[in-house]
Amino acid sequence: MMDRLLKRCRIKSRLLRECLAEFFGVYIVILFGCGSVAQVTTSQNTKGEYLSINLGFALGTTFGIYVAKGVSGAHLNPAVSLTLCVLGRFSWTRLPFYVCSQVFGAFLAAATVALQYYDAIMDFTGGHLTVSGATATAGIFTTYPADYLSLWGGVVDQIIGTAALLVCVLALGDPHNTPAPPGLEPVLVGAVVLVIGISMGSNSGYAINPARDFGPRLFTYISGWGDEVFRAGHGWWWIPVIVTCVGAVLGSVLYELLIGVHHSDSEPEEAESPTAVLQQTLEFDTIKENSMDKIFSITAADIS
Amino acid sequence: MMDRLLKRCRIKSRLLRECLAEFFGVYIVILFGCGSVAQVTTSQNTKGEYLSINLGFALGTTFGIYVAKGVSGAHLNPAVSLTLCVLGRFSWTRLPFYVCSQVFGAFLAAATVALQYYDAIMDFTGGHLTVSGATATAGIFTTYPADYLSLWGGVVDQIIGTAALLVCVLALGDPHNTPAPPGLEPVLVGAVVLVIGISMGSNSGYAINPARDFGPRLFTYISGWGDEVFRAGHGWWWIPVIVTCVGAVLGSVLYELLIGVHHSDSEPEEAESPTAVLQQTLEFDTIKENSMDKIFSITAADIS
Amino acid sequence: MMDRLLKRCRIKSRLLRECLAEFFGVYIVILFGCGSVAQVTTSQNTKGEYLSINLGFALGTTFGIYVAKGVSGAHLNPAVSLTLCVLGRFSWTRLPFYVCSQVFGAFLAAATVALQYYDAIMDFTGGHLTVSGATATAGIFTTYPADYLSLWGGVVDQIIGTAALLVCVLALGDPHNTPAPPGLEPVLVGAVVLVIGISMGSNSGYAINPARDFGPRLFTYISGWGDEVFRAGHGWWWIPVIVTCVGAVLGSVLYELLIGVHHSDSEPEEAESPTAVLQQTLEFDTIKENSMDKIFSITAADIS
Amino acid sequence: MMDRLLKRCRIKSRLLRECLAEFFGVYIVILFGCGSVAQVTTSQNTKGEYLSINLGFALGTTFGIYVAKGVSGAHLNPAVSLTLCVLGRFSWTRLPFYVCSQVFGAFLAAATVALQYYDAIMDFTGGHLTVSGATATAGIFTTYPADYLSLWGGVVDQIIGTAALLVCVLALGDPHNTPAPPGLEPVLVGAVVLVIGISMGSNSGYAINPARDFGPRLFTYISGWGDEVFRAGHGWWWIPVIVTCVGAVLGSVLYELLIGVHHSDSEPEEAESPTAVLQQTLEFDTIKENSMDKIFSITAADIS
Repeated sequence: MMDRLLKRCRIKSRLLRECLAEFFGVYIVILFGCGSVAQVTTSQNTKGEYLSINLGFALGTTFGIYVAKGVSGAHLNPAVSLTLCVLGRFSWTRLPFYVCSQVFGAFLAAATVALQYYDAIMDFTGGHLTVSGATATAGIFTTYPADYLSLWGGVVDQIIGTAALLVCVLALGDPHNTPAPPGLEPVLVGAVVLVIGISMGSNSGYAINPARDFGPRLFTYISGWGDEVFRAGHGWWWIPVIVTCVGAVLGSVLYELLIGVHHSDSEPEEAESPTAVLQQTLEFDTIKENSMDKIFSITAADIS
Repeated sequence: MMDRLLKRCRIKSRLLRECLAEFFGVYIVILFGCGSVAQVTTSQNTKGEYLSINLGFALGTTFGIYVAKGVSGAHLNPAVSLTLCVLGRFSWTRLPFYVCSQVFGAFLAAATVALQYYDAIMDFTGGHLTVSGATATAGIFTTYPADYLSLWGGVVDQIIGTAALLVCVLALGDPHNTPAPPGLEPVLVGAVVLVIGISMGSNSGYAINPARDFGPRLFTYISGWGDEVFRAGHGWWWIPVIVTCVGAVLGSVLYELLIGVHHSDSEPEEAESPTAVLQQTLEFDTIKENSMDKIFSITAADIS
Repeated sequence: MMDRLLKRCRIKSRLLRECLAEFFGVYIVILFGCGSVAQVTTSQNTKGEYLSINLGFALGTTFGIYVAKGVSGAHLNPAVSLTLCVLGRFSWTRLPFYVCSQVFGAFLAAATVALQYYDAIMDFTGGHLTVSGATATAGIFTTYPADYLSLWGGVVDQIIGTAALLVCVLALGDPHNTPAPPGLEPVLVGAVVLVIGISMGSNSGYAINPARDFGPRLFTYISGWGDEVFRAGHGWWWIPVIVTCVGAVLGSVLYELLIGVHHSDSEPEEAESPTAVLQQTLEFDTIKENSMDKIFSITAADIS
Repeated sequence: MMDRLLKRCRIKSRLLRECLAEFFGVYIVILFGCGSVAQVTTSQNTKGEYLSINLGFALGTTFGIYVAKGVSGAHLNPAVSLTLCVLGRFSWTRLPFYVCSQVFGAFLAAATVALQYYDAIMDFTGGHLTVSGATATAGIFTTYPADYLSLWGGVVDQIIGTAALLVCVLALGDPHNTPAPPGLEPVLVGAVVLVIGISMGSNSGYAINPARDFGPRLFTYISGWGDEVFRAGHGWWWIPVIVTCVGAVLGSVLYELLIGVHHSDSEPEEAESPTAVLQQTLEFDTIKENSMDKIFSITAADIS
C-alpha cells in the first residue's frame, strides 16, 4: 500500500530528479558537518574535539555522496560542477540548476541543525546570537577567517584547499590511474575532506565549497545573527564563494597537466585488474566505453 | 567430536534462528557500545574520550551486523524492523519476535557490561548506584537528556537522528543508487552510527534505537538504580522508544520520495559495474532478481 | 643477484615456514602495539593518548595478519590456535610449534621496542625500571590489572574480552554468514581488536592473547624489571595466559551454538554474491569446497 | 576546447611522465603531512593533536599514491626506490631521476605549506623563524630528534621504522601472501604510515623517507631558518637521509628471508580468490604473468 502511494510520486524529469539528489546530498553533508560543529561548540569541547568536526564533515560528505551518486553523480559542490563544465564533462545548461539545488540543500540543513540544537544554542548563548566573542555561534554554520589571516592569505588558503580537493577527487576517478574500488568512492572522497580539514582547517575553516558556506550563511543572516555574518572578517563571505571556484579549476588543470593528459590510450594501465582483463577479452567494448565516461560518476545524459 | 556435539543443537525453525541472530547481534552492539561508556566513565576520561564512545557504538554496530546479517538481515533495531514492515519489505507477523529478541539482547548485554565493570563501578561510585550527580553510572547503560533539553527538543532530536540513520542505511542498500560493496555494508552502517554520534550525540546521547535504550534501562531498573531511571529527565524513557519509530518511518519516506521511487526500472544504474555487466550478459536473470530483493539483506522467506 | 642469494635460503618444510610466519606476524603486532604504549608513556601523553594505543594494537594486528596469513593462516594468538584445535579445524600436533613461535615473536618484539625506546625509557625513568609508581615502565610491554580489580574481576574481564574476540573473528570468517571481503579480513580483525581496546581496556589492558602478554613479560623479567613482573597484581601474570584460552573456547562455542551450527547446507546464503553465483554456475566444485575450508585462513595441509 | 588545449601538452617520454607522477605524489604527501603539523603547531593544539599529524601524513601518503600509482608505481620514497633496485625489481638507471623528482616534490610542497600558513606562522612566531624554543617552526617542515635521543638511538630508531615500513608494504603487495584488494593498496599503505607514526613517532618524528625530510629541510635552509636546520640535533639531518635507506633494505631482506622466498611456485595461495580461479581457468597466462610482476605496482617498462 505504502509502496503504491510512493510510486504515484514518481518524477519523470531527469533534471528534476538530479536536482532533488543534489539537494538531498548537500543536505546530508551539512546536517552531519555543521551538526558536529554545533555539538563541539555547545558542549564546550566535552562531547567532541576539532578532530570530530573533521570527521563530521568527512563522513557527511561520504553519506551525502551515497545518497546522491546514483542519480546525479553527487557533485555536491558548485565548484566541482563548474570545473566539470570547464573540462567538458558536464553541460553548462545544467549548471545553474545544480548550483541552486546545492545552495538550497545547505540552507535547509543549516535550518535543521539550528532546530535540533535550538535548546543547546539558547542555553550556551543565553539567547544572544553573535558572530564573534566567547559564546559566538555563527561559526557553527559557516566559516570565518582566523584573526591573523589577511585577505590575500585567505585567497591563497581557499585556492590551495580547493585545488587539493579536485586533484585528489580527479585521481580517485581516473580510470587510467588507480581508481577507487566501485562502491567505495564515497568513502575515499570523504577521506579527502578529512585530510583537508586536518591539514588546512585552522586558517579559515576549509569551506572549499561555495554551497556549503553560502547556504548556511544566508540562513544565519535571516535567522537572528544579522548582517554581521556578511561583514565579519572584512567581508570574508565572498572568498569561499568565488575563490573556491578558481581553486577547483586550477587543481583540475594541474592534475590533467601533470597526470591526466599523458595517459596513452593504447596501453590502458587498468589492464592489470583481472576484472578489466575479463571485460576486454569478452569484448564488451561499447559498454566499457560508456563506463569510462561515467567513472567520474557522470550520467550519460549529462553530455547533452 | 566437538563438531558432532554442536551439530546436535541445530535448530530447524527459521524464525527461531533469526531471533537468535537478532538477539546475538544486538548483544554485541551493546556489549561494545555500553562497554566503551563504562570505560570512559569509570576511568574518568583517562582511558578514552567522547570519540571512543562514538567509536564503540559504531564498531559494535559493525560487528553486531557481521554476526547477524547472514541469518536475520541484521535489523538490530525495532525502529528499523517496523520501518521495513511499513515499506512492505518485512512481514508484520515476524515483527514482535524480532523486537523481543532485540530488547532481550540489549538487556543481557547491559548485564554483561555491569558484570565486567562491577569492580570498576563499585570503586568509582563507592557502591552508590545513581542516575545523576558526579558519580552517576546509569548513563553507562542508557540515555538521558542534557539538562537544557526541553521535551519538544528531545522529540525533535530523536526524530532527526533516527531519520538520518534510515536515510543513510536505505541509500547504502539501494541497488539503483551506489550500494555499499558486498561484505562492507556492516562497516558503512557502523560509520553512519559514528557520524550520528559525532554530530547528534550531545543533546540526549543518540539512542536512535528503542531496544538499545529500553533493554538496558530495564536492567538498571531491576539492578539497583531503581525507578529513577524511568523518572529522570521528566520521564525521558519513552522518547527513545516511541519517537525513534516515528523518525525512522519519516526518514525512509523522505529517502523514497526524494530518491528511491524515481529510479526507472528500465535503465538500472548498476550496469556501470563490470561484474553486473557480466551477470547481465550471461543472463542469470532469475538469480539477479532475487539478489535485488535481498540487497537490503532481507532473506527471501521474509516475504511471507 | 640478490634474488639468487635469497632463493638459496628457501625452506622446504611447510611447518617451519608456518612457524616463521607466526613468529613474524606476532612480532609485528607487538612491535606496533607495545611501541605505541612506549610512545604514550615516555612522551607523557604529549605524543599520543589512550586511543592511539588502541589504534597501535589494532593496526599492529592488521599488518601482523597481512604478513602471516598467506603462509600460516595468521592465528597470532595461542588461544585462537587452541580454539581451532578444539573445533577440529587445526591439528593438535602443530599447536605446540605455533604457540612457541608466537611467544618467541612477542618476546623478540618487546626487546626491539626496548631497544628503540632505550634512550626515552632511560630519560623518563632516570634508569630505574619499575613495575609501579609514577615512572613505571613495565606496563609498556605487558598488562597489569587496575588497582580496584579483584582476582575474580580479572578472570571475568579476560573471559568476556577473549570470547568477544572469537565471536567476531568467527563471524568474519563464516562463509554462510556475511564474510569479510577477500583481502580485507586483516583490517576487520584489527577493528575487532580496536573496539575491544575501546570498550574492555581499562580493567586490565585487554591482553586477550597469551603470547602477547607472556612473551614480553618474560623479556621484562630478564631485562631489569625483575620478578616483580610476576608478583604484581597478586600474581596477575597467569590470568592472561590461562583464562584467555577458556574465554576463546567459550566464545567460539557461543558463536557456533547461536549462529554457526544452524546454517543449512542446502541453501548457502553466499549465493547472493554475483561472483559466487558465477563460480557455482561454472561448476568449480572441488575448488569451491577447498576455498570454503580455507576461509578461516587455514591452509589445506593443516588438516593432517 | 579545454580538452584540446590540454591534449597538446601530452608528453610522450615514459620516464618524464613517471618523474612528473613521483613529483606530484610526494608533493601531495608533504602538502597534507606538513600542513597538518603547521595546523597543530600554529593553532597551539586547539585545532588538532598529535593524532591528527599522524592522520595527516597517513592520508597524505594514501592520496599521494592514488595520484601517482597508475603512472610511476608510486614509490614516493627514495629508500623504497633504492630497495626495489636492490631486489632487482626496478632499474638502477631510473633511480636518480625518481629520487630527484621526489626531493623536488617535497621541496615545493614545503614552500606551498609555508605560503598557505604564512600569516599563521608570522602571527605565531612574531616573525622569528627558529629551529628550537617555544615558538619553533622548523619542525613543521622537517624532523628533529627529541632532546634525550643519542646519535645511536636515532640510527636505531630510523632503521627500525623504515624496516617496519618495508616489511608491511612488501606483505601488502605479495601476490603469494594476502595482498591488499585492488584499488585499496593506497589506503593500506597509508595505514602503515599511520601506525608507524603512532608507535615510532616520539623519538625523532618518523621521517622514514629521505625525500620527505631532505626536500623540506632544504626549503627551510634557504627561506629564513638558516643553517641551524642542518646543525640542530648534533647534525641530525643525514640520519633520515642515509639510515632510512639501510633500514629499508634490511626490512625487505627480512621479509624475503622470513616469508617471501619460501612461497612455492607450484601452489599459488591466491587460487583461493574466486576471481583468480576464473582467470586461471580461462587461461590468461601471459596477462597473468605480467600482472604478477606488476603487483608491487612496477610498470613493465621498468625492467629495462
